Amino acid sequence: MEKILVFDTTLRDGEQSPGATMTTAEKVRVAQELDALGVDIIEAGFPVSSPQEFDSVVQVAKSVERPIVAGLARATKQDVDKAAEALKHAAHPRIHTFLATSDLHLERKLKINRDEALRRIEKAVSGARAQIEDVEFSCEDATRSDLDFLIRAVQVAVDAGASTINLPDTVGYAHPADIERMLQAVRAEVNGIDKVVLSVHCHDDLGLAVANSLTGIENGARQVECTVNGIGERAGNASLEEIVMALRVLPRYYDRFMTSIVAERLCPVSEMLAHVTGMKPQANKAIVGANAFAHEAGIHQDGLLKDRRTYEIMTPEMVGARGSRLVLGKHSGRHALARRYSELGYDLSSAELDRAYDLFILLADRKKVVHDEDLLAIYFEGTMEDAPRAFKLEYLEVRCGRSPSDAVVRVSHNGGPVKEATATGDGPIDATFSAIGELAPWEMRLEEFTIQAAGGGKDAVGEVHLSVRVGGNEFAGRAASTDIVDAAARALLNALDKADHARGLEARAFARMDLWAV
Amino acid sequence: MEKILVFDTTLRDGEQSPGATMTTAEKVRVAQELDALGVDIIEAGFPVSSPQEFDSVVQVAKSVERPIVAGLARATKQDVDKAAEALKHAAHPRIHTFLATSDLHLERKLKINRDEALRRIEKAVSGARAQIEDVEFSCEDATRSDLDFLIRAVQVAVDAGASTINLPDTVGYAHPADIERMLQAVRAEVNGIDKVVLSVHCHDDLGLAVANSLTGIENGARQVECTVNGIGERAGNASLEEIVMALRVLPRYYDRFMTSIVAERLCPVSEMLAHVTGMKPQANKAIVGANAFAHEAGIHQDGLLKDRRTYEIMTPEMVGARGSRLVLGKHSGRHALARRYSELGYDLSSAELDRAYDLFILLADRKKVVHDEDLLAIYFEGTMEDAPRAFKLEYLEVRCGRSPSDAVVRVSHNGGPVKEATATGDGPIDATFSAIGELAPWEMRLEEFTIQAAGGGKDAVGEVHLSVRVGGNEFAGRAASTDIVDAAARALLNALDKADHARGLEARAFARMDLWAV
Repeated sequence: MEKILVFDTTLRDGEQSPGATMTTAEKVRVAQELDALGVDIIEAGFPVSSPQEFDSVVQVAKSVERPIVAGLARATKQDVDKAAEALKHAAHPRIHTFLATSDLHLERKLKINRDEALRRIEKAVSGARAQIEDVEFSCEDATRSDLDFLIRAVQVAVDAGASTINLPDTVGYAHPADIERMLQAVRAEVNGIDKVVLSVHCHDDLGLAVANSLTGIENGARQVECTVNGIGERAGNASLEEIVMALRVLPRYYDRFMTSIVAERLCPVSEMLAHVTGMKPQANKAIVGANAFAHEAGIHQDGLLKDRRTYEIMTPEMVGARGSRLVLGKHSGRHALARRYSELGYDLSSAELDRAYDLFILLADRKKVVHDEDLLAIYFEGTMEDAPRAFKLEYLEVRCGRSPSDAVVRVSHNGGPVKEATATGDGPIDATFSAIGELAPWEMRLEEFTIQAAGGGKDAVGEVHLSVRVGGNEFAGRAASTDIVDAAARALLNALDKADHARGLEARAFARMDLWAV
Repeated sequence: MEKILVFDTTLRDGEQSPGATMTTAEKVRVAQELDALGVDIIEAGFPVSSPQEFDSVVQVAKSVERPIVAGLARATKQDVDKAAEALKHAAHPRIHTFLATSDLHLERKLKINRDEALRRIEKAVSGARAQIEDVEFSCEDATRSDLDFLIRAVQVAVDAGASTINLPDTVGYAHPADIERMLQAVRAEVNGIDKVVLSVHCHDDLGLAVANSLTGIENGARQVECTVNGIGERAGNASLEEIVMALRVLPRYYDRFMTSIVAERLCPVSEMLAHVTGMKPQANKAIVGANAFAHEAGIHQDGLLKDRRTYEIMTPEMVGARGSRLVLGKHSGRHALARRYSELGYDLSSAELDRAYDLFILLADRKKVVHDEDLLAIYFEGTMEDAPRAFKLEYLEVRCGRSPSDAVVRVSHNGGPVKEATATGDGPIDATFSAIGELAPWEMRLEEFTIQAAGGGKDAVGEVHLSVRVGGNEFAGRAASTDIVDAAARALLNALDKADHARGLEARAFARMDLWAV
């Protein structure tokens, strides 16, 4: 059996999805899940792009032991050095450097000629190799590159010491036949190509990312770059769970390949990412969508009862999908709670369990039955915080239903005096935010706002995700409650906590440079 | 150029998505959009499955002129006759009959042998042909069928007069190579196959539905079955917009093919379907997702400014994607409103415009600027209703933020006396629903509940979708408002209106039989 390396770029290319920005603490938590999932390489970020991004890579590198941790770098000395520095504490560091090889990118974006491109590739790869043994080189926009030049570029990278060569379909433009032709040519023409790992990295602009990735594997790629839930730039990257399960469910094509992925962790990691980013996969998303294993039609249900195989090529259990079950009530103890979390895939530390139990008791007091979704909402809220809680919601009362709504809010700041504000607004959330705005020490502007119900019922826990602009910076906030108005108020304060924390640090550290690519 | 027929099954297989159930009025409205989109065949439903479903097919058949309207039927006389009857008013009717051809389905589900299957196919197809000229036959689970038997089954259907032969990948199990092998064999072995249209119908359980559909076209299929947004059983069907745009964006493979799809209508129809079903495509869904054309990374943005082609293989304009723009305010007139709706792709009737304008003025009074999303929410709410408004919300006042919330609700029923109820609950929506529950004439249970913000800001219009079980039946409700508590209350009353209406009709007509398949 040949092993297919799974290179997860959820924290780098995935985080480039508008709305998917993660804090360092969130990235560390997701990295730990990716470790448990069994991915081979975690791309942690793009160290040079900002001090905050640099720090994220450092923290991720420190927090996992088994997987390789990669840092992205353009083909410049500054980028490569910064990546090497960020990866200092990684048990298995990799520098991932890249340069575009298509004429369109060389001429129009980089404004350099092909020879200059080759020189930069040689310098970047050998410079990286001088610092770290494991070096990956990506030919950005490979699928639109002139094939002869692509081969020359790959040859230079291999000769300079790259151990992995990645050929990305940067703009999601490839047909499987393009991937086949490209890989066959590179394998036939590049000297020493059999000593490096070939990799593909596909985007889903035409819905072909998974098919292209599988075609890559069929044609010699031994690494696939992908993301959980398929998040990423534009239409996203190839979805990790779909590639892994296609390899597993289609043994007639892929029985000579294996991955190290623990398939039962696919749904838990998908769910965690959705909580962290507020981006839920659509119900009919393959493998991890809420309906992926739901059979609605009577004929299907009838067939399933007679023989599950009639309409099921894999079972929900294989990928760790769970139905919604009511499990716990107010008389459930700490031990039962810990066990249920463990069954859901989360082994809580003693401190985490203390916190979760307090919230659970509060919730169980208000709801008759507590669902798995509620437990996850409890767990995710309040973990993974970067900033200490500076603002405290002392009191909230909102009247709504009629127009306008009005809100009374009392907030304290760092244990100081409680201040009160009242405001009217269009709906309860508008009124509440206007009142909080009166009390906030800075001007702020709401940029994004989403509500999700964790379960299905009217007393389900609602999760609010939002982002607020303060000065030039944007801060994300998140909170969960059975009362969505309360959740909204606390999500806003959560964002303000981060703004408060940032003010205490060097402001420049929080200006995101946003230079990520590939 | 060869034409690829687009067979849209959003109203049949798509509606089998849990949560995507549509009323007759909604189906008619979606069918009109599909007509404007340019699809060749609209599969309107499965007439025998329930009187309500029968009526939907009748109404859709009456409401469109250009496209073929198909009705699904198992391979039985009863099903076929019912489909023919439902299609009586269609300008271009098609009976779509099917039988499973895989041994697994024959033995375990249908419990018949292969000879009996062939007999049933012959009878169903010739019986359909006796009534309607245009007959499609589908070999359910074709991709898992024994190839020799599949060929025999197709031969029988062709000989019996089927003009379209569809080979579905019912369980989403096929690799493109399977599709290629199957189509090549059927084309080589079946006599008269060149006189019928071959069709593929792919499911996305492994993320391969689009690749499989394209492989089908490359191997002789001249019809693709697909759905808007890729909704459908489990992981859904092949996505219409992805297939159509792949054919268009990859001329190096597909320049000899064309479809009749008006690509600029892809995003509007996607948006309408999301409003109708409450199932929004995830942000990174190809073509129609909110981020499909969003470029987050600095390098990408930099490249785009220099030359859009560096990171863009198609433009948002090509598929009718619009950025969020603020367009209208309280001083905008009726004419400006009508023009903006027209620009968004909706030409409102005079009555629709009257209604929309009243709501617009109300909204413009409460919000400084009215966004396109708000206009769409206004338009979608209240159109496409099957039931007259029986319940009227006379007064609503809710206090929340603290635990518990309390609500005062006054409701009148069919112009009768106003009744008031008060209730407490866990959060404002729980309290409101409990109070309405006190006033409702029947026991009800909330089954589903989702909130979506139409725009991004805190005063965006929120849309609530829910479903309620009353007796044995489930009723969907929907409403939009800047006050989400108000929207929730009105969505619940909308569902109760439908329950009230159903009570007045024969109860049996509303018991869904749910027999759909393929």
